[in-house]
Amino acid sequence: MSRCRVQRVSAKERHAAIGDGVENGVRGVTMTEVARRSGVHATSLDRRWGSVEDLVLDALLDVSGDTLTVPDTGSLRGDLRAFARLLADYLISPLGTALVRSMSTVEDDSATSDARRSFWLARSKAAGVMIERAAARGDIAADVDPRIVLEMVIAPIHFRRLLTREVVDDRMLDAVVDITIGGLSFPS
Amino acid sequence: MSRCRVQRVSAKERHAAIGDGVENGVRGVTMTEVARRSGVHATSLDRRWGSVEDLVLDALLDVSGDTLTVPDTGSLRGDLRAFARLLADYLISPLGTALVRSMSTVEDDSATSDARRSFWLARSKAAGVMIERAAARGDIAADVDPRIVLEMVIAPIHFRRLLTREVVDDRMLDAVVDITIGGLSFPS
Repeated sequence: MSRCRVQRVSAKERHAAIGDGVENGVRGVTMTEVARRSGVHATSLDRRWGSVEDLVLDALLDVSGDTLTVPDTGSLRGDLRAFARLLADYLISPLGTALVRSMSTVEDDSATSDARRSFWLARSKAAGVMIERAAARGDIAADVDPRIVLEMVIAPIHFRRLLTREVVDDRMLDAVVDITIGGLSFPS
Repeated sequence: MSRCRVQRVSAKERHAAIGDGVENGVRGVTMTEVARRSGVHATSLDRRWGSVEDLVLDALLDVSGDTLTVPDTGSLRGDLRAFARLLADYLISPLGTALVRSMSTVEDDSATSDARRSFWLARSKAAGVMIERAAARGDIAADVDPRIVLEMVIAPIHFRRLLTREVVDDRMLDAVVDITIGGLSFPS
């Protein structure tokens, strides 16, 4: 099978998997259903992805690479507050919910592990611009690690959406951003 | 069936589910296997739990209610740093991994929603003592919300263990605790 043919088939299978994943929640998807929708034999799907969870995760990563825009409000507080709201909305959408639930359950093999790493690297590079701009303006110290700042803001939102399922409102989002910014070292 | 008999059967089924859940990862568990191990008909399990994910979550919540001890080092920084290490270790254990992965995927019905709420309420009440003691000592303002402080510390650990699967080391844990404490309002 040529590389081109593999790519085309893969896209079709991914699309079929995503349809299922988003409509039924990740756990409703079966290889049989994806095979029926994509017209590809279940045994071929098995050979390529190993499990339906891997297939769904692969499909979700494929379409949700650059969903969030990165705000540019002129201040770190404004940027992070706006970004937190975009993320909170995304994580309650069918696609966002399916993606994070799928990412949290999959037992990584080398392929999913690579896909996972690239996904978070691309996301944190894009969003890290907010922190880099703040450092360039002199609002925060130049040696602040953008990764940890982002994690302090986005982790509590993922935590509520995925695990506690508690309300995520503006008050909570602002508190998270304010504590994070308050805890950064400012240039002396 | 008497209440007592229901309780006994439930404990046996839970135990069977946990064995599976922890050994195979949550997605390896089937109602048939739990039925075989517990000696209870799969139809009865279906009636009681609806899905194998609900059964596993119920079982996991049942045994992991009070796994983490709450440190008392004399300072908020010391307490939170020690607690962060305990949590990071727990979340990489088979039981901790199975619990959070299971909690993140289950689509709540009213029973799992109640179990989820009680679980987090009990946990945050127990761990909240660290923040209450700090407020009583005058180390932080009395009106600081213990819940948000805890979330700022524990969410990034869950985020890495569940979603990015990146290394959680002492350096990362200390940075999370230090940013959180630095961002709290101190009494004037």
